[in-house]
Amino acid sequence: MEGNAGTLLSKINSPEDLRKLRPEDLPVVCEELRQFIIDEVSTNPGHFGASLGVVELTVALHYIYNTPYDLLVWDVGHQAYSHKILTGRRDQFHTNRKYHGLSGFPKPSESEYDTFGVGHASTSISASLGMAVAASIQKDEQRKIVAVIGDGSMTGGMAFEGLNNAAVNNSDVLIILNDNNMAIDPNVGGVSNYLLNISRSKSYNRLKQEVWDGLGKLNGFGPKARRLVQKTEGALKSALLKESNLFESLGIRYFGPIDGHDIKYLTKVLQDLRDIPGPKLLHVLTKKGKGFKQAELNQTEFHAPGKFNKVTGELLDCECAMNKPPKFQNVFGNTLLELAEKNDKIVGVTPAMPTGSSLNIMMEKMPDRAFDVGIAEPHAVTFSAGMAIRGMVPFCNIYSTFMQRSYDQIIHDVAIQNLNVVFCLDRGGLVGADGPTHHGVFDIAYMRHIPNMIVSAPMDEIELRNLMYTAQQENMGPFSIRYPRGCGCQVDWRQPFESIPVGTGRVITEGNDLAILTFGTTGIQASRAVKSLTKDGHSVAHYDMRFVKPLDEKLLHQIFKKFTKVITIEDGTIQGGFGSAVLEFMADHQYTSKIVRLGVPDRFIEHGTPDELIRECGFDQKSIIQTTLDLLQG
Amino acid sequence: MEGNAGTLLSKINSPEDLRKLRPEDLPVVCEELRQFIIDEVSTNPGHFGASLGVVELTVALHYIYNTPYDLLVWDVGHQAYSHKILTGRRDQFHTNRKYHGLSGFPKPSESEYDTFGVGHASTSISASLGMAVAASIQKDEQRKIVAVIGDGSMTGGMAFEGLNNAAVNNSDVLIILNDNNMAIDPNVGGVSNYLLNISRSKSYNRLKQEVWDGLGKLNGFGPKARRLVQKTEGALKSALLKESNLFESLGIRYFGPIDGHDIKYLTKVLQDLRDIPGPKLLHVLTKKGKGFKQAELNQTEFHAPGKFNKVTGELLDCECAMNKPPKFQNVFGNTLLELAEKNDKIVGVTPAMPTGSSLNIMMEKMPDRAFDVGIAEPHAVTFSAGMAIRGMVPFCNIYSTFMQRSYDQIIHDVAIQNLNVVFCLDRGGLVGADGPTHHGVFDIAYMRHIPNMIVSAPMDEIELRNLMYTAQQENMGPFSIRYPRGCGCQVDWRQPFESIPVGTGRVITEGNDLAILTFGTTGIQASRAVKSLTKDGHSVAHYDMRFVKPLDEKLLHQIFKKFTKVITIEDGTIQGGFGSAVLEFMADHQYTSKIVRLGVPDRFIEHGTPDELIRECGFDQKSIIQTTLDLLQG
Repeated sequence: MEGNAGTLLSKINSPEDLRKLRPEDLPVVCEELRQFIIDEVSTNPGHFGASLGVVELTVALHYIYNTPYDLLVWDVGHQAYSHKILTGRRDQFHTNRKYHGLSGFPKPSESEYDTFGVGHASTSISASLGMAVAASIQKDEQRKIVAVIGDGSMTGGMAFEGLNNAAVNNSDVLIILNDNNMAIDPNVGGVSNYLLNISRSKSYNRLKQEVWDGLGKLNGFGPKARRLVQKTEGALKSALLKESNLFESLGIRYFGPIDGHDIKYLTKVLQDLRDIPGPKLLHVLTKKGKGFKQAELNQTEFHAPGKFNKVTGELLDCECAMNKPPKFQNVFGNTLLELAEKNDKIVGVTPAMPTGSSLNIMMEKMPDRAFDVGIAEPHAVTFSAGMAIRGMVPFCNIYSTFMQRSYDQIIHDVAIQNLNVVFCLDRGGLVGADGPTHHGVFDIAYMRHIPNMIVSAPMDEIELRNLMYTAQQENMGPFSIRYPRGCGCQVDWRQPFESIPVGTGRVITEGNDLAILTFGTTGIQASRAVKSLTKDGHSVAHYDMRFVKPLDEKLLHQIFKKFTKVITIEDGTIQGGFGSAVLEFMADHQYTSKIVRLGVPDRFIEHGTPDELIRECGFDQKSIIQTTLDLLQG
Repeated sequence: MEGNAGTLLSKINSPEDLRKLRPEDLPVVCEELRQFIIDEVSTNPGHFGASLGVVELTVALHYIYNTPYDLLVWDVGHQAYSHKILTGRRDQFHTNRKYHGLSGFPKPSESEYDTFGVGHASTSISASLGMAVAASIQKDEQRKIVAVIGDGSMTGGMAFEGLNNAAVNNSDVLIILNDNNMAIDPNVGGVSNYLLNISRSKSYNRLKQEVWDGLGKLNGFGPKARRLVQKTEGALKSALLKESNLFESLGIRYFGPIDGHDIKYLTKVLQDLRDIPGPKLLHVLTKKGKGFKQAELNQTEFHAPGKFNKVTGELLDCECAMNKPPKFQNVFGNTLLELAEKNDKIVGVTPAMPTGSSLNIMMEKMPDRAFDVGIAEPHAVTFSAGMAIRGMVPFCNIYSTFMQRSYDQIIHDVAIQNLNVVFCLDRGGLVGADGPTHHGVFDIAYMRHIPNMIVSAPMDEIELRNLMYTAQQENMGPFSIRYPRGCGCQVDWRQPFESIPVGTGRVITEGNDLAILTFGTTGIQASRAVKSLTKDGHSVAHYDMRFVKPLDEKLLHQIFKKFTKVITIEDGTIQGGFGSAVLEFMADHQYTSKIVRLGVPDRFIEHGTPDELIRECGFDQKSIIQTTLDLLQG
């Protein structure tokens, strides 16, 4: 369904059209834009709250800056829907996040207005500085560069690395700190508290305001005005802000905080800042979900709410209903609490995903033993290592794609020291609508080459419970468990715990002519395929390997002694993944069976539903059947 | 050679012995310790400057804190020699960094005084917070935890992630900022400038000093004194430091700066701070190389100077003399400058290793086009991506082991967008004396599963030049080149550039009975082995594959059609590495040759000389010959 774009919005086919409007038209554009997003996202799910929060900011930026010549860099990109709608993609917006449709994130291949591809947090400052240096070397000094980064992303270490570098080359970059006091869950940490203090400090704000208003009277900044800025700011700092704030400490001029929903003031401030040289930061206060009451009230739920009633705000997607298998996330969250109640060494860690991972279940019951450390994956792992070396058993839950941020810490702080940190890799495999920046397809390959690491994946919810139970036993060392987003296949998942001997697979179906080896939930598609093949008279065996490392060598010897045709299936890259581990075993033991490896091929997979993507990659049920038949006949 | 430990030092077999001494003995201990380090490191090379800089701090910490019950966490660990010498390892210190000897870094398996294994920068705050949380859960609240982190490490993003989290749990951690204004090269960035400003600000320091002295008169901190601290600090902040400094902004109480070479004052301050609860930071000013004049004057050279004359400071190790092959690093540095002079799109980036990587050659000649971004590998990569997307060709030079820090940024910011960033992975393979934290053995495996990435390694200096030349050509996309530390085998390396077609290997030696496939400088050992085998009448072929990705499939088809016995050799993990790529090719094309993969096995390799370690792993010349003979006979 295409939303009704409203009288003004329907005529804006590019920011140039927007810039032809009078300033007094902008509030109407904002209203229409907001309504358009509500109309669209209520029926075609996506990231909602963040985009509503920056409607005014987005309009103001495109109004004041000469995009696409001037470069806007959106951090993460959850908030870029207004930007997409204003930059020529209004009429395709109903395809947002759909297979072959618009990406849910800024993407340079989609539009020249998307200056840098995003998805992960905290990259915008570094990227902007790179662009600024390029412009400077290219003598393209009129080009303005603006990074928009949320307060959640600001806790990520690389944002700080960018800040630390901003002043060095005196790059002409404006960093807009979009402060809504939220990541997906409420933001945490020193930076967050600090920003809250600033925002609430009346005397500080009043002084800043007076300086600003004084400057405003000058109507644009000539050299004289600039000197005045410097002088006044200098005086202000001496009076109140000696070695003043977090950002000024780093050599970045700080402006704000200002109301991010006051479009008139926002355009005015941006106009003025546009011509101030050097690195500077504008602190803008916004509200996540602004303008849609339910979203303002339930900011975490309305981050990406699924379908909802656009009038009442009632949520319409309830992924896992009664008598249906639960989400793996719920199984993780509830199981962790059960285990922690029995084992007082267990602690839980999440970098800013308490709700998404369901660690919030433990956080509510055991606030002293479960921690949201903010968007800070490297810290999350080394913080876990610090606890582990003192005898605790941390369950460090990080989405597979974000665990890439901690690759070094896994090796250097956990694996070398052989510490019992349990890595729970949520969103393993192809995640669907979030696309290539979010697919968790590398973890099998990057975890299995790390010495000391146990690499496992459950086929279903009961196996997840039992792997978690196994991982927290004495002297386990580093232990990784990966599982996908969403629901599994077991309604009756809350079974008594059973320990799984490390490095053992299991037989799902016996057979004689060909063996299918699966890792993780690909076993579900495979078992359905095998059932269908059996019905058609084929004798196909199916093994759920459970561990890529250590491999079940005993089982593999049996398999390769019996079968000359073998298929491996994994929801991850086949370069160096599970299938390659099997090839290494074969080479080491001189087996020469014919082997086909199914999984994610060596290219970035775009967005779509998981079913569409798995089909594209060729390891859906139908493709498994076809591959089996081809191999049986080959 | 064992150094002469001096009268007092020779009696200190543990910190308990140190704590029995009178305060007035400590300067003598420091003097003896410093001389011991000079004696030892001048003959048995290691990290020199950093350890000299913290002699007083180390003595003070072990004197005031009840180690090993109280936990000292050293960041990086370059500076931990005094710590090792005071904690029972004085008499083994002559084995420092030698095969089967002491590690050059803190290592829990070596001593209970080493609380956390290190080598990479910026981990200490996160680890300490983890330890503090563990102590708190374990009701072990008397245990004190101290992290010692340099100003260089403080620029790393994860240090900031730790700082951001320090205040959250109100953890009782003391962070000591060991500020010598240096990483290995001079430190850069906003934080560094900020610290320098603080250190030089007289009025600020005087005020702080007065407060401190006022407190000092109270002789220990009861509840009354604590209230006074709070009150006075509050007043001070109001007067001068409203929302005061970088650290206070994050909710961490800041003390300092103080002179890190005044042992008397240092012990006094630590004594007082010991009993102040909550997260706090003590800013200590030290001098790298303190007490050895040449080291104070040439801090970068004396970071890890090799052997030197302990009287004159003359450097005695000159690795690459006249008429010997140059270091790969020099070839990189000189070649990059040559290329940059011809191609004005080229820029250079290093995270704090300008001297180590030789990027300093370009930095000197082209300061606007070559950047040291501080210890900040994730930022280095995304900053490069920002330049690349605007048309530049960044050569981003990062040691292989530190590139692990940027794994996500390589995928998310470079490879997905298919940007022409050239990753130069210095110190690829087993690095020798720095040991398991520093071996660059994972990069082949982690680079080759990234879509769009070209993965190459030169066998010699000329190939390095030509790969660099190739990588900067139009539309290359992400291109990685890995090479080892130290010298190669080509004296006459400065040959005219030749483009190497991407994905092509070359024949080094023709042969009939067995093929050896090498990647990178393992080709040098292999070619010597093949020469020796040929001399003995064997017909062994040798191919330098040059690219793991894309593989030279044409060449591989020729090889596997001809040879039933193949050996692959790589200076990296054989789990998922070069050899596995060859296995994947074989499986995809149904070749069944017998194949032996040589490389780094699936365990962490300790320190030693590269020759010792390569022998241990079984891919030195002798092992290659033996493996070949076994396979020929098998």
